[in-house]
Amino acid sequence: MKRIITLGEIMLRLSPPNRDKFLGSPSFQANYGGGEANVAVALANYGVETAFITKLPNNEIGDSAIKHLRSFGVNTRSIVRGGDRVGIYFLENGFSLRNSKVIYDRKDSAISTALVSDFEIESILKGWDILHLSGITLGISNNGFEISKAFIKKAKELGMEISFDFNYRSKLWSLEEAGKKIKEILEYVDIAFAGHLDFTNILGIVPKKPLEKVDIIGYYEDLYRKVSSKYNFKYIVSSIRDVRSASNNSYTGICFDGDKIYRSKTYEVDIIDRVGTGDAYTAGFLCGYAMGKDIDYTLNVATASSVLKHTISGDVTLMKIDEVEKLFENDSLDVQR
Amino acid sequence: MKRIITLGEIMLRLSPPNRDKFLGSPSFQANYGGGEANVAVALANYGVETAFITKLPNNEIGDSAIKHLRSFGVNTRSIVRGGDRVGIYFLENGFSLRNSKVIYDRKDSAISTALVSDFEIESILKGWDILHLSGITLGISNNGFEISKAFIKKAKELGMEISFDFNYRSKLWSLEEAGKKIKEILEYVDIAFAGHLDFTNILGIVPKKPLEKVDIIGYYEDLYRKVSSKYNFKYIVSSIRDVRSASNNSYTGICFDGDKIYRSKTYEVDIIDRVGTGDAYTAGFLCGYAMGKDIDYTLNVATASSVLKHTISGDVTLMKIDEVEKLFENDSLDVQR
Amino acid sequence: MKRIITLGEIMLRLSPPNRDKFLGSPSFQANYGGGEANVAVALANYGVETAFITKLPNNEIGDSAIKHLRSFGVNTRSIVRGGDRVGIYFLENGFSLRNSKVIYDRKDSAISTALVSDFEIESILKGWDILHLSGITLGISNNGFEISKAFIKKAKELGMEISFDFNYRSKLWSLEEAGKKIKEILEYVDIAFAGHLDFTNILGIVPKKPLEKVDIIGYYEDLYRKVSSKYNFKYIVSSIRDVRSASNNSYTGICFDGDKIYRSKTYEVDIIDRVGTGDAYTAGFLCGYAMGKDIDYTLNVATASSVLKHTISGDVTLMKIDEVEKLFENDSLDVQR
Amino acid sequence: MKRIITLGEIMLRLSPPNRDKFLGSPSFQANYGGGEANVAVALANYGVETAFITKLPNNEIGDSAIKHLRSFGVNTRSIVRGGDRVGIYFLENGFSLRNSKVIYDRKDSAISTALVSDFEIESILKGWDILHLSGITLGISNNGFEISKAFIKKAKELGMEISFDFNYRSKLWSLEEAGKKIKEILEYVDIAFAGHLDFTNILGIVPKKPLEKVDIIGYYEDLYRKVSSKYNFKYIVSSIRDVRSASNNSYTGICFDGDKIYRSKTYEVDIIDRVGTGDAYTAGFLCGYAMGKDIDYTLNVATASSVLKHTISGDVTLMKIDEVEKLFENDSLDVQR
Amino acid sequence: MKRIITLGEIMLRLSPPNRDKFLGSPSFQANYGGGEANVAVALANYGVETAFITKLPNNEIGDSAIKHLRSFGVNTRSIVRGGDRVGIYFLENGFSLRNSKVIYDRKDSAISTALVSDFEIESILKGWDILHLSGITLGISNNGFEISKAFIKKAKELGMEISFDFNYRSKLWSLEEAGKKIKEILEYVDIAFAGHLDFTNILGIVPKKPLEKVDIIGYYEDLYRKVSSKYNFKYIVSSIRDVRSASNNSYTGICFDGDKIYRSKTYEVDIIDRVGTGDAYTAGFLCGYAMGKDIDYTLNVATASSVLKHTISGDVTLMKIDEVEKLFENDSLDVQR
Amino acid sequence: MKRIITLGEIMLRLSPPNRDKFLGSPSFQANYGGGEANVAVALANYGVETAFITKLPNNEIGDSAIKHLRSFGVNTRSIVRGGDRVGIYFLENGFSLRNSKVIYDRKDSAISTALVSDFEIESILKGWDILHLSGITLGISNNGFEISKAFIKKAKELGMEISFDFNYRSKLWSLEEAGKKIKEILEYVDIAFAGHLDFTNILGIVPKKPLEKVDIIGYYEDLYRKVSSKYNFKYIVSSIRDVRSASNNSYTGICFDGDKIYRSKTYEVDIIDRVGTGDAYTAGFLCGYAMGKDIDYTLNVATASSVLKHTISGDVTLMKIDEVEKLFENDSLDVQR
Repeated sequence: MKRIITLGEIMLRLSPPNRDKFLGSPSFQANYGGGEANVAVALANYGVETAFITKLPNNEIGDSAIKHLRSFGVNTRSIVRGGDRVGIYFLENGFSLRNSKVIYDRKDSAISTALVSDFEIESILKGWDILHLSGITLGISNNGFEISKAFIKKAKELGMEISFDFNYRSKLWSLEEAGKKIKEILEYVDIAFAGHLDFTNILGIVPKKPLEKVDIIGYYEDLYRKVSSKYNFKYIVSSIRDVRSASNNSYTGICFDGDKIYRSKTYEVDIIDRVGTGDAYTAGFLCGYAMGKDIDYTLNVATASSVLKHTISGDVTLMKIDEVEKLFENDSLDVQR
Repeated sequence: MKRIITLGEIMLRLSPPNRDKFLGSPSFQANYGGGEANVAVALANYGVETAFITKLPNNEIGDSAIKHLRSFGVNTRSIVRGGDRVGIYFLENGFSLRNSKVIYDRKDSAISTALVSDFEIESILKGWDILHLSGITLGISNNGFEISKAFIKKAKELGMEISFDFNYRSKLWSLEEAGKKIKEILEYVDIAFAGHLDFTNILGIVPKKPLEKVDIIGYYEDLYRKVSSKYNFKYIVSSIRDVRSASNNSYTGICFDGDKIYRSKTYEVDIIDRVGTGDAYTAGFLCGYAMGKDIDYTLNVATASSVLKHTISGDVTLMKIDEVEKLFENDSLDVQR
Repeated sequence: MKRIITLGEIMLRLSPPNRDKFLGSPSFQANYGGGEANVAVALANYGVETAFITKLPNNEIGDSAIKHLRSFGVNTRSIVRGGDRVGIYFLENGFSLRNSKVIYDRKDSAISTALVSDFEIESILKGWDILHLSGITLGISNNGFEISKAFIKKAKELGMEISFDFNYRSKLWSLEEAGKKIKEILEYVDIAFAGHLDFTNILGIVPKKPLEKVDIIGYYEDLYRKVSSKYNFKYIVSSIRDVRSASNNSYTGICFDGDKIYRSKTYEVDIIDRVGTGDAYTAGFLCGYAMGKDIDYTLNVATASSVLKHTISGDVTLMKIDEVEKLFENDSLDVQR
Repeated sequence: MKRIITLGEIMLRLSPPNRDKFLGSPSFQANYGGGEANVAVALANYGVETAFITKLPNNEIGDSAIKHLRSFGVNTRSIVRGGDRVGIYFLENGFSLRNSKVIYDRKDSAISTALVSDFEIESILKGWDILHLSGITLGISNNGFEISKAFIKKAKELGMEISFDFNYRSKLWSLEEAGKKIKEILEYVDIAFAGHLDFTNILGIVPKKPLEKVDIIGYYEDLYRKVSSKYNFKYIVSSIRDVRSASNNSYTGICFDGDKIYRSKTYEVDIIDRVGTGDAYTAGFLCGYAMGKDIDYTLNVATASSVLKHTISGDVTLMKIDEVEKLFENDSLDVQR
Repeated sequence: MKRIITLGEIMLRLSPPNRDKFLGSPSFQANYGGGEANVAVALANYGVETAFITKLPNNEIGDSAIKHLRSFGVNTRSIVRGGDRVGIYFLENGFSLRNSKVIYDRKDSAISTALVSDFEIESILKGWDILHLSGITLGISNNGFEISKAFIKKAKELGMEISFDFNYRSKLWSLEEAGKKIKEILEYVDIAFAGHLDFTNILGIVPKKPLEKVDIIGYYEDLYRKVSSKYNFKYIVSSIRDVRSASNNSYTGICFDGDKIYRSKTYEVDIIDRVGTGDAYTAGFLCGYAMGKDIDYTLNVATASSVLKHTISGDVTLMKIDEVEKLFENDSLDVQR
Repeated sequence: MKRIITLGEIMLRLSPPNRDKFLGSPSFQANYGGGEANVAVALANYGVETAFITKLPNNEIGDSAIKHLRSFGVNTRSIVRGGDRVGIYFLENGFSLRNSKVIYDRKDSAISTALVSDFEIESILKGWDILHLSGITLGISNNGFEISKAFIKKAKELGMEISFDFNYRSKLWSLEEAGKKIKEILEYVDIAFAGHLDFTNILGIVPKKPLEKVDIIGYYEDLYRKVSSKYNFKYIVSSIRDVRSASNNSYTGICFDGDKIYRSKTYEVDIIDRVGTGDAYTAGFLCGYAMGKDIDYTLNVATASSVLKHTISGDVTLMKIDEVEKLFENDSLDVQR
């Protein structure tokens, strides 16, 4: 089984309990999460060996982030300690026609002010097969971008594969800046996770016909072929989300292996926590890939992994791989006694 | 922008947490609310200057009610202190096929035993443009009725407008008593908030044809024209609620400007807290009116204000006006990052 | 009104709050429940005199189980104290596409290691009209089976009626063992609660045609007539559950009086707590029966009782009989004030 | 063993959690309690058969008060249902140099507006040996006083003993009114629980020398002999409390059997909940008396019962009699494993 | 009565509940506080008219800080909106031999990056009598220092008095930097709140003899006279804290009016929340001063105000002035009913 | 630094929140702990490399115990999965004069029914320097005893040192059985943790003179010399606890190196959680030993480690080594800002 190491920022997440609003909330639930950290945790839960690379300050908030990762079995030995603060994001969990809100307070976090020289990159990467990171790590700061590039290049030198999730965040950077920086690293990427808007808005690759509900597959196939003609990705992986309300979505997985397009079952799911569902999708796909499974299984695991994450509070999925498999194998949803 | 002062009772609301039932609940969530107080808070949140008039006892429960109002920026200087107790209502929050329940324990509250002479009415009202109150203030006691009348008459003398919400509560008074007393003050009212049953059951004004789903608008138009021929309201404002379950309703705003009938978009909403949704509707309407907006905007804000309140725990909405506007402008309901 | 005594195990139920998963939950909500105990509590809530027979250890966990029963007015004087432990079950409450999970930790509980000689059976049963128990009491251990048989036989001797719920639990015993033991007591049973799978899989009674959505009634009638030709039940009572998700089911009651088949209204219900809904159904039926009501009322109460239990946290219903009646009498589901 | 029935008011008690202050508390812990109800619960916990007489409204708050009593095994069959409301008291739990506060909202509760004719007094009292009540029941209203007198007189007719706790509450009535009414029933009392201030301030019985720390016993003996010369009490029972802070008191039991004065060990105790400690003292004394124990044991149980109640949240003690005995038998206070 | 306006930073305070440690805490209690904001809130509670000046970002965390201030009646109209973030501090509440810990995450908060030109200083200060601020506002950043100076100078021009609390925080700035900057504004100060270490370590003013328990007053008098010979303070106000453990301190107020030294009663207090006790002391003193009370009363109120704050969770006192007075008037600490 | 592996049982600990009693508690806090597991966690917190050996069932409760250990960095690779259940203990946390209570429900846990053949003992122990276990692992069952012996003997063969804590639990086994079994393994022990009662009651070694407060050291020295003459321990380590109340103890460390007796400072500590304080003591001692520190430092760390654990909720200490050092270095206990 392939071993996967991820690089990025892990933040303290503060959210009012019980779907309350921010205003005057007398307490916040504390979770720890971030795109790449969430992927590492999910992979560890699914039985894949995994590690997480970041920088965290030498205080109890930093300790707590590490405790979180370690509790799931994520290897935390490559985490550098230092810097001033753990990035924070505030999450207000929406419901029905009231949407969720995020306030970022992540500027000047330890990882976003870290230097390439903080990391012994070669010794950190040695022994791992896949390096995963996302556009967030590139976007948090120039330092983040430099560190990302250094890790990606060294990983390639060491013969590792690169998994990259576009993960565009408009509160972090503009489409222009994202486009410029992401293009610099895209040639190294083997597996690309991206929504169709990432291709059109960030890379400027536009299919002939606009997206229609009646021919989604046609639209994606056209888009994927255009992307593939430009970038040499092993897999392009997307998901189709229909946002019926802040607490009810439908979700479908879709991917392209350079040749053929694959599509998962579509699920309708009620939502306890929307955040991290994309990361659970990525982790599910990487899990199938790391285990050498076929693309059908892999896409199904990815989609079921994401769908189930919608029902779990916090940034990370707590499911095990057999529970994920049960969903796409259509087990009864009644209580088993 | 018009400045709005409201008059009524604010109660301590006690509800079991987590949609639990009353029986044996080991704790109660404490909120403060009441029809007119809720309207004042919502208006303050939406940026309208507002004050609340009531009487509250000189103890920490009374202090807490004032702290609640003040925290939203409602002017509380006209609140008279004295009397024996803060009225209480117990709320059991229903779910799906189990309906919500209310136990009133509001008899002999400070405001319901207050005297007209407790208030320096003229000095309280001076400087305000609109006086809002509801049938509840008339119905809590004879004293409440006398105080209401005194404020309404003085407000008219001072050139203020009167906004009145029928807000019929069968646990407070009979249809007969309500009819008799409401009719006494209706001639002073400029904006009337009322359901169709209020007109038929309390005022005895019945349209020619019965209410049918196929021609709701026709029914309301007929009803409104009959009412308008009798009372000189600037606006008659209603809402149409379809109670699919205790936690799922559909909701439409409807109003009449003496000439034409207007109707908002219809929303289907899952419910976290049903109480205070009518007050959020009223506040949304008064907000648009106070800001001098057109009737379409005003009705849309009112309806979206009410719909969003269904998703917020407690008696009052915590939304800001731009969040309300986003709903009827059809912004995506997905999390924004 | 008939007086009903039930026999079985009451367990400590531990469930993570807020639909959280087991993994790493920092607290568990503590409830007490078990099939027959839940029936006794529901009956007491509905106004039927009731008692519960079991054995519980002489410690505070045992005391707490008794406190729970006593708080609802269930007579607990026949509970024998002794043995080592209170059985425990862990419940993870599912949501949407994530199903609920149960971990049993009930082996060697006081009742499952009790002896027939622990109970003064005749003096316990005297004065009661109906003895109710379920397949769980037979299945927890050989001792449980022997105790059950002894109580059933003595009850019959005393002229009591026997109510029996199959309540098959695959984590307790195999279909074969269940079949063998249940058959030993079935001749004494007057009212049998069972799903169609209980008849086919445990008793081996199979209707001619397979179950189809289009002719459920036909299927059940055929099945019931076959069962009735073999066993002399006064009533056979089942429910039809359509599991759309872990938090949304549809539910219909169905029963057979040896002659005719009856069917209740079908309800669609969102779920707060799935556990104990079958017990609420049984209790509703026994309540109608104990009160001498007709079969239509009885089946309607049973179904509404179960449906409402889905919206209540914990093992037991907290509704009163008039609240149950309101549901099938189609009262408005809006808040009453 | 003697069987004890108590008469009084049971209230809903609302207290902010975690020693928080009232002001703005977002929740209240809900307990049920009242002097005589607390005595009944403690006696039931200690193994004495007991019942409670009151009137409670026919709503879920009334149901919850009954559920509370029933959960401890207190017989609730003599509770009359009706009236408007359950009395409420708000409790702010003090700490160190910040004292506890009580806000009463108990006016017009069901029992305080009940009529003598609401109760079938003779049939309620039949079969019980001791009637216990306190000055609170006399003081809540004139109706309360009339009901108390009717029960006391009938109890005496039936040969029962009367236990009476002065329990003076300055927020309920004046010393004058208390004196006038208490004197009317004192001739029927067999066991009187009272502080020295009750004798001096309410009955006007003053010892020769003022109270000094150096000769407390002398002071009390003088006081008791004077009281005994006027009233024919079997026992006069008091406690000496030294209030070092709101969360640390010392406590000593003291009593007089008409002949000799007895004194318990003095305990210093840190306080979790001060309320109901007097009731636990009374219950401990009545328990020893009901069991026919000697006065030394009885006074020790009473004092230990009260002291331990200080460490238990809520109005009532949750200890069992053997746990109480262990305290005055000087068992180790370390954890036993 | 004098009207007091304060200037400073208000932060979001995050603390694990129940005296838990930071590490892995699943939730944080959210409070809002900061030295000068706490003084404003306490003064408002004590009945003094007050306002708070700061800059807060235009998001819901900023809104919540304002809601907090407004709820107590603090005038918030001079708060400028803008900037990136609300400063945060994490508080771990110690117990017994485990001390409390603070992690500051306040860098680059809106007020610390604000400009003098953000504030219309003259119009903000007009109508107020006293400007209060502390060393924290000077120490958060150079911008904070410039803003402080600008406000102080303008206040003096307008004839206002300046109240200044040294409030040295070693995690904010060095003794050297503090000394340099504080000296720049000290000439404008009328009332100085400072510990003896502030005079010796920051200002370099050292009494002849070292501090001894036996002659604390002599030590302070010598110190105060030396300070007074150099600075023209109306009052120098200190407190003497003996830290017996993290949850038990003794506390004495001490002050100097340029002529005579005054000392309050000494209290021993158990601690629920140590933070903000100095601010409660300052507020108590300013309250007495604003009301024109004599120095004995003023020092007693200050000390009692601080002592009581130790028993209240959160940054601010919730006491009212009459409750504070009761403490130093030696009212009983037993519950009053 | 020496690396330490520990062997034993880890249980689910269920305790009512807020020092509530068991009876009727609506929730339990869930922790995981057990003597040897707690030692491993504390050592990991103090920076010592550590692992834990046990058997846990393959369910989410077992997973949660592993998550707990892993979160602190304890190596869990030697944990065997299988068996029926995780042992449970219920803890009622005492206060003041009410003592803490433990109910064990640990029979037939996975480790107590495990077989020697479940463990690849040699490969588990390889690479570790010290094996630590306690009398609890010997006492849980015969299987536990056999497994313990097998590990101890293999460890000795591999040249490891054995650390053994008597940890006598009267609810697990009798003094006789404990004596018989402990004596079988004592010859292999290098470091023995034991109270004086363990030596006298279990081993039957009695000093000449009885224990007196005036000459504790003399008593212990005599006892230790007698023990040393019989067993070849490198260190005998004890603690002296004076139980003033369930929430206040004094605590002193004492040890003997075969030659000289050492004694730590005595601390008086208020208690949040008494459980696991002995394990924190053991871990502190082993930490100093593993780091090669001198005996004075080691004993001081051990004592401070234990004392601080009294102030931390749960079975394990959350302190870091520098925080422990600060206590015995007499740092101020005031908040540091």
